Amino acid sequence: MHLRLSMLVSFLLLAFTTACTQAPPPDTHDADVQSLKDTEAAWVKVVAAKDFEKTVSYYADDASLLMSNAPAANGKDAIRAVLKPVFDDPNSSLAFQPSRVEVAKSGDLGYAQGTYTITTTDPKTKKPVTDKGKYLVAYKKQADGTWKAVADMDSSDMPLPAPGKK
Amino acid sequence: MHLRLSMLVSFLLLAFTTACTQAPPPDTHDADVQSLKDTEAAWVKVVAAKDFEKTVSYYADDASLLMSNAPAANGKDAIRAVLKPVFDDPNSSLAFQPSRVEVAKSGDLGYAQGTYTITTTDPKTKKPVTDKGKYLVAYKKQADGTWKAVADMDSSDMPLPAPGKK
Repeated sequence: MHLRLSMLVSFLLLAFTTACTQAPPPDTHDADVQSLKDTEAAWVKVVAAKDFEKTVSYYADDASLLMSNAPAANGKDAIRAVLKPVFDDPNSSLAFQPSRVEVAKSGDLGYAQGTYTITTTDPKTKKPVTDKGKYLVAYKKQADGTWKAVADMDSSDMPLPAPGKK
Repeated sequence: MHLRLSMLVSFLLLAFTTACTQAPPPDTHDADVQSLKDTEAAWVKVVAAKDFEKTVSYYADDASLLMSNAPAANGKDAIRAVLKPVFDDPNSSLAFQPSRVEVAKSGDLGYAQGTYTITTTDPKTKKPVTDKGKYLVAYKKQADGTWKAVADMDSSDMPLPAPGKK
């Protein structure tokens, strides 16, 4: 009986120790960072192809697009209104690449910082004009596992045109 | 003996179930969000008091300050060089307030989005001029439990001065 008891106790110890040590979730940090990098890379391609609705699909429903010299555009309709003229511009092209991507240990929040190059039609000269700058995007993982931008901000590196310059 | 065995098994079950159910870390999300809000509120006060070094202390060593119409300032020395003239300006005052603060479930990464008002001396007229805009800051919790800004970006809401305007 003592042998059977000690076997039972040993079995229970093993079973519960195994159950307990398996309790913490697996470390998915590297995979989470890679999935956010992949998301940005896919977004870059969609933007380069000037696919308007697919570009907008990378924003969360309550996302803010924070453009320089304009108030915040909050929500997808406001974001569409800001981006549409850029996408409709026949001279426009936009490329961006992250220099830093970080994701929380829990894999639900992250950000990307990087640089962009955009070409648009100058409203005065009607010629293509190129701007270079930087961006910061906060991302939130959605219920379906995809990353969506919740706040997207960018600004030019170029000095301001001097006011009153002739 | 059967009674003692069943008591022993019950005790072991209880002990290990308790140990297992206590295994996941406590949910600190509300406290983490509050601590990030508190950090921003404290930073606002330090900036309002124009305490230069304390203001800089809210940045991580590898932080980027992403100002409009200037390249990224990477690291504390570059950030000091950008902020010093603003703090030395006798007319300057800066206030900011978050409109959205989110923190990862793991409590190690977060961001704040909000609005700012800054007054500085206009280099041409030498009179105080006020700008309003928005900001996005990515925060990372440090080893000592404090939040530090890892990327700080802001941009004006005001329309660009028309180039060539007299």
